[in-house]
Amino acid sequence: MHKASVGIFGASGYSGVEATRILAAHPKVELRFLTSDRWVGDSVARRLGPNPAGRLRYVSIPEGEALARECAAVLLATPNEGSLELVPKLVAAGVKVIDLSGSFRLKQPSAYPTFYGFSHAYPQLLDRAVYGLPELFREEIAGSSLVANPGCYPTAASLALAPLIRAGVIEGSDLIVDAASGVTGAGRKASEDYSFSEVDADFRAYRVLKHQHTPEIRQTLARVGGREPSLTFTPHLLPVKRGILSTAYARLRPGVEPSAVTSTLSDFYASEPFVTVLGSPDEVNLKAVVGTNRCLIAAGCDQTGTDPGRVVVVSAIDNLVKGAAGQAVQNLNLVMGWDESLGLELRGLYP
Amino acid sequence: MHKASVGIFGASGYSGVEATRILAAHPKVELRFLTSDRWVGDSVARRLGPNPAGRLRYVSIPEGEALARECAAVLLATPNEGSLELVPKLVAAGVKVIDLSGSFRLKQPSAYPTFYGFSHAYPQLLDRAVYGLPELFREEIAGSSLVANPGCYPTAASLALAPLIRAGVIEGSDLIVDAASGVTGAGRKASEDYSFSEVDADFRAYRVLKHQHTPEIRQTLARVGGREPSLTFTPHLLPVKRGILSTAYARLRPGVEPSAVTSTLSDFYASEPFVTVLGSPDEVNLKAVVGTNRCLIAAGCDQTGTDPGRVVVVSAIDNLVKGAAGQAVQNLNLVMGWDESLGLELRGLYP
Amino acid sequence: MHKASVGIFGASGYSGVEATRILAAHPKVELRFLTSDRWVGDSVARRLGPNPAGRLRYVSIPEGEALARECAAVLLATPNEGSLELVPKLVAAGVKVIDLSGSFRLKQPSAYPTFYGFSHAYPQLLDRAVYGLPELFREEIAGSSLVANPGCYPTAASLALAPLIRAGVIEGSDLIVDAASGVTGAGRKASEDYSFSEVDADFRAYRVLKHQHTPEIRQTLARVGGREPSLTFTPHLLPVKRGILSTAYARLRPGVEPSAVTSTLSDFYASEPFVTVLGSPDEVNLKAVVGTNRCLIAAGCDQTGTDPGRVVVVSAIDNLVKGAAGQAVQNLNLVMGWDESLGLELRGLYP
Amino acid sequence: MHKASVGIFGASGYSGVEATRILAAHPKVELRFLTSDRWVGDSVARRLGPNPAGRLRYVSIPEGEALARECAAVLLATPNEGSLELVPKLVAAGVKVIDLSGSFRLKQPSAYPTFYGFSHAYPQLLDRAVYGLPELFREEIAGSSLVANPGCYPTAASLALAPLIRAGVIEGSDLIVDAASGVTGAGRKASEDYSFSEVDADFRAYRVLKHQHTPEIRQTLARVGGREPSLTFTPHLLPVKRGILSTAYARLRPGVEPSAVTSTLSDFYASEPFVTVLGSPDEVNLKAVVGTNRCLIAAGCDQTGTDPGRVVVVSAIDNLVKGAAGQAVQNLNLVMGWDESLGLELRGLYP
Repeated sequence: MHKASVGIFGASGYSGVEATRILAAHPKVELRFLTSDRWVGDSVARRLGPNPAGRLRYVSIPEGEALARECAAVLLATPNEGSLELVPKLVAAGVKVIDLSGSFRLKQPSAYPTFYGFSHAYPQLLDRAVYGLPELFREEIAGSSLVANPGCYPTAASLALAPLIRAGVIEGSDLIVDAASGVTGAGRKASEDYSFSEVDADFRAYRVLKHQHTPEIRQTLARVGGREPSLTFTPHLLPVKRGILSTAYARLRPGVEPSAVTSTLSDFYASEPFVTVLGSPDEVNLKAVVGTNRCLIAAGCDQTGTDPGRVVVVSAIDNLVKGAAGQAVQNLNLVMGWDESLGLELRGLYP
Repeated sequence: MHKASVGIFGASGYSGVEATRILAAHPKVELRFLTSDRWVGDSVARRLGPNPAGRLRYVSIPEGEALARECAAVLLATPNEGSLELVPKLVAAGVKVIDLSGSFRLKQPSAYPTFYGFSHAYPQLLDRAVYGLPELFREEIAGSSLVANPGCYPTAASLALAPLIRAGVIEGSDLIVDAASGVTGAGRKASEDYSFSEVDADFRAYRVLKHQHTPEIRQTLARVGGREPSLTFTPHLLPVKRGILSTAYARLRPGVEPSAVTSTLSDFYASEPFVTVLGSPDEVNLKAVVGTNRCLIAAGCDQTGTDPGRVVVVSAIDNLVKGAAGQAVQNLNLVMGWDESLGLELRGLYP
Repeated sequence: MHKASVGIFGASGYSGVEATRILAAHPKVELRFLTSDRWVGDSVARRLGPNPAGRLRYVSIPEGEALARECAAVLLATPNEGSLELVPKLVAAGVKVIDLSGSFRLKQPSAYPTFYGFSHAYPQLLDRAVYGLPELFREEIAGSSLVANPGCYPTAASLALAPLIRAGVIEGSDLIVDAASGVTGAGRKASEDYSFSEVDADFRAYRVLKHQHTPEIRQTLARVGGREPSLTFTPHLLPVKRGILSTAYARLRPGVEPSAVTSTLSDFYASEPFVTVLGSPDEVNLKAVVGTNRCLIAAGCDQTGTDPGRVVVVSAIDNLVKGAAGQAVQNLNLVMGWDESLGLELRGLYP
Repeated sequence: MHKASVGIFGASGYSGVEATRILAAHPKVELRFLTSDRWVGDSVARRLGPNPAGRLRYVSIPEGEALARECAAVLLATPNEGSLELVPKLVAAGVKVIDLSGSFRLKQPSAYPTFYGFSHAYPQLLDRAVYGLPELFREEIAGSSLVANPGCYPTAASLALAPLIRAGVIEGSDLIVDAASGVTGAGRKASEDYSFSEVDADFRAYRVLKHQHTPEIRQTLARVGGREPSLTFTPHLLPVKRGILSTAYARLRPGVEPSAVTSTLSDFYASEPFVTVLGSPDEVNLKAVVGTNRCLIAAGCDQTGTDPGRVVVVSAIDNLVKGAAGQAVQNLNLVMGWDESLGLELRGLYP
């Protein structure tokens, strides 16, 4: 079988390692290069253990740029600044790009100064980039050469809410997304804040009312709902390595039956390989999704009369897989015209 | 100094042990008896290590009932059924009672079948019981002989929201309390669901839209706000031993300045020994409260325009201390006419 | 490709689930039945999520016994008593058996009362059972129809020490194995001792000087060394879900070069698919093996003169994989005459 | 009551914070100054929460040096280099010094290049420094003005073995100390190696056969036993915040009754306030000592004949308390002529 050459920039961060592990075993991919700031010269086997791409050696970013020109596609698991530098060059060179950073996710350039702290230098690429949430925008992704891979929280929250907004089952305003993530979501770095002694046995909210994933979730819901919803998103830091659980709150639209909530979700995801709708929010948890590309979703409506019309939707993903590298490979599969599930039959662990 | 005799029913559960440890070092308390179903005959020193009450031995509940008659007050760290049996007898015997169970917290008997699964046999005692949240109902508690010690989640949520509702700063409806608790909140028992292998590295919501603390929070907010708010409460299970973090969502009332949120909380708690209002929700965490009787609270209002008028209030307590045994001792101090902070100068650990 | 029918008894315990997950994706295996005491009637998909054997339903042990007669081989992930009942019947029926319990591991029937607390009713089956540590006893296993799958600790300890004893590099006496295991090693059960609140943040030794894996390690080392070594084994309980790290202590035999320790291990395992010898004991850790069938080993000798001749060998495995279900599948592959690595290309997680 | 002025250098590290918390509540101590490299100008209350010394502000090291001259004693919770710079000046100024670093613990200057990586510039101060393990060297400490506070591992290991060597119950050679520590033992710093994502769910040995605590343990055992024992010490990194568990292995001396092991330990520690000897090694764990100045010890001898004469001694301490700041305060109490337990009635948490 002919394989396509693919490279990864930023392959030593946690998302980059996950992408390496997935693509090294991908039946249609020939891993062509991996860049790293810290592992240049080392082999994959030395850093990641036994691996189908074990002999491949990490190279510097400039070496990666040269090698990228011989690739069909590249994944960018780089920080925002890294992607901002690389994407214009790679797009100009005609390489298909899946960018895991936040640099090309928002359509409004004006949101970048507020939420990311920089002015965006390539607004025309924002127009061109396609938002890579396959369950919602599959066709568009398939025809694209620049995919902005969604953030981890927006993946969990948008998959929970978008079908309900699209179907008019819930109100498209007054939404709350309260979510918690494992520590790998903060990336791989030496930081006292994320040291074991500071994080273990602790729990806290962070970036309250100002997290950069807020406009990203709103943008997606606006696309399916027709208008931008008022929405508050609160992330929390869990003492776990991997996983995001999102608990979203909305209002049933007047006249809609409560049972429509679960049935709408079930119908929408009926043939999706990576999304499972369960019967009760109590069944959704991290351990069933960690290590896999799955998203679990379940919803409930108030039955006790304490908050009539209240809808709660709980969803869970692995932030490094469906929330990053797994979804990037799903997008790569779409962009390359392959079966969307290729290379993504990941088992996770139990327990 | 004269000491008052106090006993504890249910002293081998986690709340009971915490109460034992606090009261054993309390300057005005003589621990008279401790009941346990599992440690009868053992000494406190054998079970809890070096302790001022080390020589005291655990007794059965019937022995405890006899000894209670010689006590000024007793704490009930018993399950709901245990408290339902003991409270009527103890009240009849003229002993002051602080009950840590949920059996006497709700004023509406009709809420018990819905949320607790039993019909309440002593509605007249529901009338008589005083809800033991000292920061809100101090005077009433001081004059009472039956205190229903609040639930852990309701303590964290009510302390966060009640002053804002009372002052008319936020709307008294459409409230959301999204909270997470450590595993000791589930009590001490052999249960596969709470085994290390099932809980570690996991996170999930439970009893979504039906947890029994929902009517308890609503009842407290109704008392300070004049009417029962529509409110949804979602508890989550954290892979930590102790601590509750509550993230509450409300709407600023029209015409109120956003700055009024924090200033109202700061003013309300200015002279409270156990509640500290911080400047930012990001500063509230579990590790600053675990092992202490403290509650940390901080609030924020939407500034980015993504959800105008949105108010977020984050609060944290130790579920076994301010959420159970510590608050029970605070109530005991009030009931006995002592300084409310006696015995509660607990240091916690760092980190 | 023709597939062989295989069944699993005890498929809802942690080892049984791991075996199910491995065999469901095994290219030569048709999973024929799974027994469970708790999940009878449920499908694999309902209990374990998406799975190639998702439609298979759990059955009772008697149903399993009937179905076993149509199988080429069965795995027993049952407790000791369960295996003691099943093995004689299955062997009599001509089914190949891989037993994961301890019931058929020791050759000396007299060791059972001392270390397992029961008298062994089938001493002739002890003679017949082959000890399933493929790296040491591969040929014997291949010709066997009753394999006693090794214990988790003995796997880690024996792989570390056996090649050194066989080669006469270390003394065959005065050995110490100090090891620590994750909580899944205690099995799946409701038990207060293994509850999250009791285990998290804790560490302790257990069954000191009397653990049943002591005679098992000694027996293996006696087979390769010619005489039974004096040996002390101390297990500890780690607050992690999976993984065993063993730190073994021995003495270099007089006249042997220190460098012979690592070179002997490296040579012995040079062509083994699942054992990797590293350069320094500091490189061996749990996270590199959890979720895989790998064993990492590294050794060092005293260089500072504080304990001349001291040899330290550190090894790590996943207790549920190489320490249980993975090794069982390795043994199944041998017994069936297949490639020993079939179905065992497990990736684990990073980090 | 007259209070003595005491200062702490290095008060923002974990040991320094623990020392601050203990001394702030010490009945005979007036905390005079705290130095910090990161918190200069901040108050204790801002950094540690409510605290009797809440208003005290952190100062720079030079400011601390000036203030130290007005103090009766100082604690140094500084790294090795910091202590090497400060101790000579402070001793010359006539201030009593308790140094928590390793810089003055070893009597042999030649051990420093091997185990600490530097040549010691003040060998005469090594002679003068008294090793601060009160249970063994109480009188000497009481008369000293420079106390080298023991390392965390050496405290746990020496308390377990020294009484047995002194009494001739075990052989003074061929000793093994296999121990595991929580992550706070690595200090407070930004380091990827100690990040939550790297440490959680993992376990590994480190500095195998070369840790600097090896000569420290040997030196102590040599003092009580008359000659330096051959000894191997292996530290491991536990995924917990606090606590050390040491499992030590020795040989019963010929002719000694096995029962002498526990009775020797029990007799030796009979009147010690902080050491408790338990009946079985299985009872020793971290959670009973974390947050306290206690040391738990229990021993066993081989009864099964698998390793005749083998003695196992398990001990546990909190590395930040009895292994650092608590023991420093115990030494301060001795040096100042106070009751040795003053300020050390710490309760810990349960569970």
